[in-house]
Amino acid sequence: MTAPPKAILFDTFGTLVDWRGGVSAALAEIGARRGVTADWLALTDAWRGAYRPSLDAVREGRRPWCVLDVLHRDSILALLPEFGAAALADEVAALVAIWHRLPAWPDSVAGLRRVHARYLTAPLSNGHVALLVGLSRAAGFDWDMVFGADVFRHYKPDAQTYLGACGLLGLDPGEVALAAAHNEDLAAARHFGLQTAFISRPLEFGAPDGRAKPARDWDFVADSVEALADQLGC
Amino acid sequence: MTAPPKAILFDTFGTLVDWRGGVSAALAEIGARRGVTADWLALTDAWRGAYRPSLDAVREGRRPWCVLDVLHRDSILALLPEFGAAALADEVAALVAIWHRLPAWPDSVAGLRRVHARYLTAPLSNGHVALLVGLSRAAGFDWDMVFGADVFRHYKPDAQTYLGACGLLGLDPGEVALAAAHNEDLAAARHFGLQTAFISRPLEFGAPDGRAKPARDWDFVADSVEALADQLGC
Repeated sequence: MTAPPKAILFDTFGTLVDWRGGVSAALAEIGARRGVTADWLALTDAWRGAYRPSLDAVREGRRPWCVLDVLHRDSILALLPEFGAAALADEVAALVAIWHRLPAWPDSVAGLRRVHARYLTAPLSNGHVALLVGLSRAAGFDWDMVFGADVFRHYKPDAQTYLGACGLLGLDPGEVALAAAHNEDLAAARHFGLQTAFISRPLEFGAPDGRAKPARDWDFVADSVEALADQLGC
Repeated sequence: MTAPPKAILFDTFGTLVDWRGGVSAALAEIGARRGVTADWLALTDAWRGAYRPSLDAVREGRRPWCVLDVLHRDSILALLPEFGAAALADEVAALVAIWHRLPAWPDSVAGLRRVHARYLTAPLSNGHVALLVGLSRAAGFDWDMVFGADVFRHYKPDAQTYLGACGLLGLDPGEVALAAAHNEDLAAARHFGLQTAFISRPLEFGAPDGRAKPARDWDFVADSVEALADQLGC
């Protein structure tokens, strides 16, 4: 029997907030203001599709350290013409800022409040501190600490993020759990010795697919942060 | 007229919590449990007296980076015999932990809550993240972010702390204010372009002395966090 964790780290995009719904709605709003029409959901998916390759360019040293705003900026500027929305290039600051204010899943605020009352909590995200602070204030997430990627100058799944967060909390990896909707994030966390909590988010990518199912025997498996709070005895 | 700040950083020891009252009371309690008597206030003052020289050893490269717990440990172990309390050496973990749980000044919780409702807030302290997280939970301080010295691996008044905090918040130094009870901390903050808020804490060192008076024309001068909240329009 594993001892219960002392701190719960939360992945953010997809796990706590609905980036697909939020980004596509905000794109549509900016497009409407500028008289531009496009397939905003498809553009959102393409933008998110550019995320992992852009992080990997930094992780593999092909690109110097930069925060997610910069990666988001470059990828949306490259995508706009493809989607017939080149006219929005001069709105790029507003486009990048969309990711600073995204709607929480319906259970996130209440669930996090319960977990935070009993455990140390912090986001552990590939977003940067400024983004996460803005997102958290807008959504109503309260934390003990905010682990943006720029605290470590590394992106998940680099060891420096998971182990860096544990180190700053003064805890051993086994005393910390990562809660995430993504199997590969949890696989890295387990590799580095953290406990793991899978939160199923079947609507993250639109229609439910295999990604919303736990791929391994994670320590906790829940379909909401509220359900995770139940399992954690909050 | 300077534009109002967007974020307020708070020094912690002395500014928000009463380290002298808290540490001396906890020392007395541990001493009583172990049947050791000593001048606990004098030991507290000597322990605090070792603080700045120990930080400077790190700042000047005479000692490799380490967190405040390690500095506190070394200085109390050196002081115990001098104060006839050598028997407490085997309580050193408990002694060091005293600084993780200190009483807030009476206005700190309510004042911080008001400031936090309207501004981004974070501690900017020479304590480390684990210490500040524990201290904040125990005292009831809510933050947007926690800037422990170990985020920067530098101690105030190094530039990396003040400017590092602004950078992680995505703000220019002029958009950030430091609130502190210590003129030298504010002088460094002003040097690096931050706004400054002096909070007078006449009882920090016991009897009031000149240190509790503003030495310069700081942007804000207040005798409590509540009074600062008033001035900030909270």
